[in-house]
Amino acid sequence: MRASQFFISTLKEAPADAEIVSQKLMLRAGFIRKVAAGVYTWMPMGLRTLRKVETIVREEMDRAGAIELTMPVVQPAGLWQETGRWDKMGEELLRFQDRHERDFVIQPTSEEVITDIARNELKSYRALPKNFYQIQTKFRDERRPRFGVMRGREFVMKDAYSFDRDMEAAGKSYDNMYRAYCRIFDRLGLTYRAVAADTGAIGGDRSHEFQVIADTGEDAIVYCPQSDYAANIELAEALAPEGERPAPGATMQKVHTPRVKTIADLVGFLKMDIRQTVKAVVVEGDEAPVLMLVRGDHELNEVKAEKIAGIKKPLTFASPAAILAAFGANPGSLGPVGFKGRIIADRTVAKMADMVVGANEDDHHYTGVNFGRDCAEPEVADLRNVVEGDPSPCGKGALAIQRGIEVGHVFYLGTKYSVAMNATFLDEDGKPKPLEMGCYGIGVTRIVGAAIEQNHDTRGIIWPDAIAPFGVVICPVGYDRSEAVRATADTLYQGLAERGIDVILDDRGERPGAMFADWELIGVPHRVTIGERGLKEGKVEYQYRRDAEATDLPAEGVLAAVLERLGR
Amino acid sequence: MRASQFFISTLKEAPADAEIVSQKLMLRAGFIRKVAAGVYTWMPMGLRTLRKVETIVREEMDRAGAIELTMPVVQPAGLWQETGRWDKMGEELLRFQDRHERDFVIQPTSEEVITDIARNELKSYRALPKNFYQIQTKFRDERRPRFGVMRGREFVMKDAYSFDRDMEAAGKSYDNMYRAYCRIFDRLGLTYRAVAADTGAIGGDRSHEFQVIADTGEDAIVYCPQSDYAANIELAEALAPEGERPAPGATMQKVHTPRVKTIADLVGFLKMDIRQTVKAVVVEGDEAPVLMLVRGDHELNEVKAEKIAGIKKPLTFASPAAILAAFGANPGSLGPVGFKGRIIADRTVAKMADMVVGANEDDHHYTGVNFGRDCAEPEVADLRNVVEGDPSPCGKGALAIQRGIEVGHVFYLGTKYSVAMNATFLDEDGKPKPLEMGCYGIGVTRIVGAAIEQNHDTRGIIWPDAIAPFGVVICPVGYDRSEAVRATADTLYQGLAERGIDVILDDRGERPGAMFADWELIGVPHRVTIGERGLKEGKVEYQYRRDAEATDLPAEGVLAAVLERLGR
Repeated sequence: MRASQFFISTLKEAPADAEIVSQKLMLRAGFIRKVAAGVYTWMPMGLRTLRKVETIVREEMDRAGAIELTMPVVQPAGLWQETGRWDKMGEELLRFQDRHERDFVIQPTSEEVITDIARNELKSYRALPKNFYQIQTKFRDERRPRFGVMRGREFVMKDAYSFDRDMEAAGKSYDNMYRAYCRIFDRLGLTYRAVAADTGAIGGDRSHEFQVIADTGEDAIVYCPQSDYAANIELAEALAPEGERPAPGATMQKVHTPRVKTIADLVGFLKMDIRQTVKAVVVEGDEAPVLMLVRGDHELNEVKAEKIAGIKKPLTFASPAAILAAFGANPGSLGPVGFKGRIIADRTVAKMADMVVGANEDDHHYTGVNFGRDCAEPEVADLRNVVEGDPSPCGKGALAIQRGIEVGHVFYLGTKYSVAMNATFLDEDGKPKPLEMGCYGIGVTRIVGAAIEQNHDTRGIIWPDAIAPFGVVICPVGYDRSEAVRATADTLYQGLAERGIDVILDDRGERPGAMFADWELIGVPHRVTIGERGLKEGKVEYQYRRDAEATDLPAEGVLAAVLERLGR
Repeated sequence: MRASQFFISTLKEAPADAEIVSQKLMLRAGFIRKVAAGVYTWMPMGLRTLRKVETIVREEMDRAGAIELTMPVVQPAGLWQETGRWDKMGEELLRFQDRHERDFVIQPTSEEVITDIARNELKSYRALPKNFYQIQTKFRDERRPRFGVMRGREFVMKDAYSFDRDMEAAGKSYDNMYRAYCRIFDRLGLTYRAVAADTGAIGGDRSHEFQVIADTGEDAIVYCPQSDYAANIELAEALAPEGERPAPGATMQKVHTPRVKTIADLVGFLKMDIRQTVKAVVVEGDEAPVLMLVRGDHELNEVKAEKIAGIKKPLTFASPAAILAAFGANPGSLGPVGFKGRIIADRTVAKMADMVVGANEDDHHYTGVNFGRDCAEPEVADLRNVVEGDPSPCGKGALAIQRGIEVGHVFYLGTKYSVAMNATFLDEDGKPKPLEMGCYGIGVTRIVGAAIEQNHDTRGIIWPDAIAPFGVVICPVGYDRSEAVRATADTLYQGLAERGIDVILDDRGERPGAMFADWELIGVPHRVTIGERGLKEGKVEYQYRRDAEATDLPAEGVLAAVLERLGR
């Protein structure tokens, strides 16, 4: 491609409403333009990268035996009512009526349509296993779309759905997709982790998120540097501390703690180790409020808390009025002493002695509290988020935490949708059975943003070779003035293009500084600069995008030298 | 591809609501499945053909220098209000509100968004010319979606938009697209015509429809077999008959014509040549009703009628009450005699003598009516549709008419959108000027249906090679039983696949009859059947989809023989 025949539109400054680095760089480099909140045009430069991501995803899905189809963007409400998602999903599900006042949605995913296809088409065990996928425009009406393509409303997603005879076969389909995802993210050239994730109401242990590692990621990823253990923070298990609970060493005392509302207040007021304090959280149980206890420096893990039997789902914090009725005090002064209801202590709390807790009397706490002596022995559960340095559940070391951006998810669905929609097949024994399903998503547009969050510097984007809009840029200095420059640039361009290299020749006639700034912003990995002075010395300049400085290549044989840099 | 790893789902009967042959065959062959009225899933088999069409369109758009981008499916109302289309477009424009009650549309085309991009990005004459295109999901909320993908609501369209400095440059962009379209339809392997079409309010002569020729087409295409003249029926000019108007030969007489309401009634009642009769149509003028006259056997051309100065736009037929007030009679008995208002006669009527016309008195007609003698001389205009045998406007022969399906449209837009949206560029003289635009559409999904309407027989679809889901099918008889059959089939399959031929090996184990019926329905152009009996005689069978019978190929060297059939 010659730049004069393409469309390059870079900006000195990102629009004022751009918040994160990928959004700013995509706007500045002319990858996207905003049309409405969370709705973008993919400009020619951006579309090249998007298509490369799509192609890698498609090739690996095909290689894994998944079969591509395309379901409609606009879907009738009826199917969504069958599964209950019409009612259950919130406002992020975009609903509308057509001219005949029939209800429709714009697809955020396609479980309903694919299950409808499956119940019509996959009627025998002989038709199984099957895995259908699409790469398609989706819409999610985010309350607050932001961060460019990272949390847009209209986006491109690859969604795949597997259908199997039984759980064992479904497990194989799941593993097959897991491996395909690893190949996809390997080929994309991104640093990522597959982390175990919560399966929610489905149960089972088959849910993994694929997270692109980036300091700016919204998700906390827990992993063990000594093993392949990795999970998201919702799922990562916090083990009980080793050893027995110490014997009580103090007597319980009531302390007046005026204006102490938080653990930080308490620690400051009492001048004590935060690890002696206990945080009280009251949630609704199926019948009455339940007191949950985590150590002062720990965070309640709501996903873990919700899974406990007898806890209202979704997890609901008790109202101030309900708390006052049950405890006789307001939040900030709550604790287990004297509370007659259900008490669940985190595993760490269960091993504590001489605790500091709220006294169930406003502006008062107890110190020196011990389970069994001063209050009832609690139920014990894993209630908290792990923290850096916790022992890994794999038993091989201490946990580390890093930030990630979720770009893929593989998920075992079981028969949730097939039972709701009566999608059965006739098994070998002649009996109808519900199809076992899995679903597998990749945020194609999101990958583009995540790749930038992971790979950029102050000058701009640094694309992995596989998804750069162009692999190589040739920057001739004086293309219009110098015969030698033009001839060398044209020859190199043709040589690379003939070998199928995605090369762009910058023939716009820009000054070198502006030209270099554009290509560093756009993030093309390999740059060859050809100038008259260098040619007189038999040299051209080569610079890899991550290099601090350019190096010389011989002008003779520059094609071979560049191909070598490209690993070709 | 092996059939066992693909998804093949053929039906014996099309669903009862399928109306036309392409719709029936696409459903039966498993190309599409209906999700809602006018909304389909493209199943794996259909998607293969759709993607091949897309690829050809994309390659030729790229070759023509157009630059691909992707505008959003969901577009904010604001842009549509700027051009007035928010108000002007009817219910086929799907409007909805997001969760914040902001108005949006689902794009039927993207003139507004691309013009918004142009006014921000194409600010100098140095940025011109530019042509941007996308291949994208569109939605048009048809009142009565029908005919499968031929008139669906959700569809895939390639839409391109050119931006130029002036009309001359815009003309070059138009011609460039016209040529690209010819290459596209040539490569698709379809019989088509580019026909001149009406430009409506834009004016000028730059509008062509690309019509796939099919007896079942909705559009009438007028062409001259002796030249390259072709136009759609709305635009095709009806020349005036040669020679002078004959002198009056009869005297005017009033005839009682009870219950005669139509021209057919009149001809039957008076037992006369229909070519002596004149049909009266009353339309609203800017001030008063206008009488339009066409010969009894001709049809008023509403597009031509609407273009006449002083005629209300859009063309509006006068109400029965207005007609009664102006003529003193009801439709069925109207004519020029005694009418004091504006009279416009078609060119053919203007050359008639001794006409039979309504008498402006219910149940009465006049015979022997002559202009100038019995009523005023009318204005003369081209008011009618041409008919087969009319002299061609090119002067080289008589017109013929055939049916077509519109699959593409190139259209000079002028400054309609750029003026409405203030999309100007700074010209070389330093002055801002509105961008000259053209728009260029191809109905990608519609092409698939049109190709079938043109190419099918009683057994199924007959794909042109370029867009067949598979180019070659290998049908082994006894693949599981016979070593020789399996080896020959596998070797041929690998040989073709290695050469990049889109081949499918039917390893499903179906009986030969069912297997052949499937592939004839699906329409794969080249079939190779391999059976044990044939192999013993050193033969395999080859059949081209259009052939009535199979022919033998030598089993030795079958790969070379098949490649020759494929023109490789």
